[in-house]
Amino acid sequence: MRRGSSCGTTASTLDSELTEDAFLGGRLRLHQPAQGFRSGMDAVFLAAAVPAQPGEHALDLGCGAGAAILALGTRVPGLGLAGLEIQPAYAALARENAARNGLGLEVMDGDVAQPPPTLRDRAFDHVLMNPPYYDRASTTPARDPGRDLAHGGAVPLGLWLDLASRRLRPRGVLTLIQRSARLPEVLAALPATMGSVAVRPLVPREGRPAATVLLRSRKGGRAPFRLMAPLAVHALPQHQRDEEDLSPWAVAVLRDGAGLPWD
Amino acid sequence: MRRGSSCGTTASTLDSELTEDAFLGGRLRLHQPAQGFRSGMDAVFLAAAVPAQPGEHALDLGCGAGAAILALGTRVPGLGLAGLEIQPAYAALARENAARNGLGLEVMDGDVAQPPPTLRDRAFDHVLMNPPYYDRASTTPARDPGRDLAHGGAVPLGLWLDLASRRLRPRGVLTLIQRSARLPEVLAALPATMGSVAVRPLVPREGRPAATVLLRSRKGGRAPFRLMAPLAVHALPQHQRDEEDLSPWAVAVLRDGAGLPWD
Repeated sequence: MRRGSSCGTTASTLDSELTEDAFLGGRLRLHQPAQGFRSGMDAVFLAAAVPAQPGEHALDLGCGAGAAILALGTRVPGLGLAGLEIQPAYAALARENAARNGLGLEVMDGDVAQPPPTLRDRAFDHVLMNPPYYDRASTTPARDPGRDLAHGGAVPLGLWLDLASRRLRPRGVLTLIQRSARLPEVLAALPATMGSVAVRPLVPREGRPAATVLLRSRKGGRAPFRLMAPLAVHALPQHQRDEEDLSPWAVAVLRDGAGLPWD
Repeated sequence: MRRGSSCGTTASTLDSELTEDAFLGGRLRLHQPAQGFRSGMDAVFLAAAVPAQPGEHALDLGCGAGAAILALGTRVPGLGLAGLEIQPAYAALARENAARNGLGLEVMDGDVAQPPPTLRDRAFDHVLMNPPYYDRASTTPARDPGRDLAHGGAVPLGLWLDLASRRLRPRGVLTLIQRSARLPEVLAALPATMGSVAVRPLVPREGRPAATVLLRSRKGGRAPFRLMAPLAVHALPQHQRDEEDLSPWAVAVLRDGAGLPWD
């Protein structure tokens, strides 16, 4: 994504200026708080890893300002799009961002730990999530409260995964992105109903340890666990300017709106 | 390793001819049952991943005919070597193999689930293990009973890991190799005393899913989980004769007795 200049407005419920940021080569333009939680490459990688087909329904748990679910809706036309967001200001921004990009998105206000009644009895083909990367019990809060909640929520990972499994239809697919350091926690907290787990590590460069992992799991799946080859975001062994050395797959995903190579 | 011709003897307690197999470019020669459980590359990779220093003590849980612990003793001189083996015929073979190669190895007869008194109150700098690759509850037994026990033991992984953690000194290191399909089970069953987990996937060729994983964990370690870059055993994208396309690191480990690259 490319961060634009401040777009000059201040959302009534966000203590921050907004910026307009271009995703997917400009096909998706999102307003995000300049100082709060800002989605970036991870949200687009997550969206690109969801194996959704036109006509299916997808739910983003903790959708923030809508980057991942709207990137998915931009890539795969004809999807039913829904999101759950605990912070009303981000939920409002997600609704505005959907309208701004001509996409239908149902945003529910609510907490993963106490899902709203509107979410009960709903079944989705896909659930996606980018749950907090840090366990707030062992880290220092961020200064911006919205950013802090998104980075290190108090809700245990297990509750995110339980809600995902309950809201998936049989054979539905969960797709998530997480820091690789938390992979053991994610695996341990996956409900027994979730199977056929596959992990795709993302590495900054070839040969480096994984920074983040994408994980897919099918409700009721019975395939063995698969640890797939890592995808290197950058192509060169040494750091150059970010814009210059993205891997071909990363360029395709981030600029051309392609799906992420999986098998 | 290179499988030699049958060496013409039949161990009194093994219903199988023995073969003599050369490991580490011929520096280690092991008798193994022709039909039973036969160690191969995985045992050498395991031994090569143990970060042992001369003067330390290492214990191999389920040492079989001794391939891994004797490969370790060949690579790192001056180690105290010990093994635990449930099958008396393999334990006897391990003792003979140690003597044959001029290495001191204490082999204890016994079960991981009920360790022998001789193992109690012992503390090791390193524990290594190549626990059964299959959960016997969900697979078909092998026809050879010795091979079956080694491939798919009835002892849960958690008992292997519990014993390892109890027999490690503080800051001691566990190193294991396992099919990658069982990585979630291993991670879930690691006792809370074991930390600083690092996983090194082994792939047949670049870009393929991991076949096996090497895992290291330090007793009392507090570093975050690390998912490292995979090591490709074969160098060429397509299969050639195995002997011809081993990766440089695999040649160094398998033929020259080098340690496995870790960081």
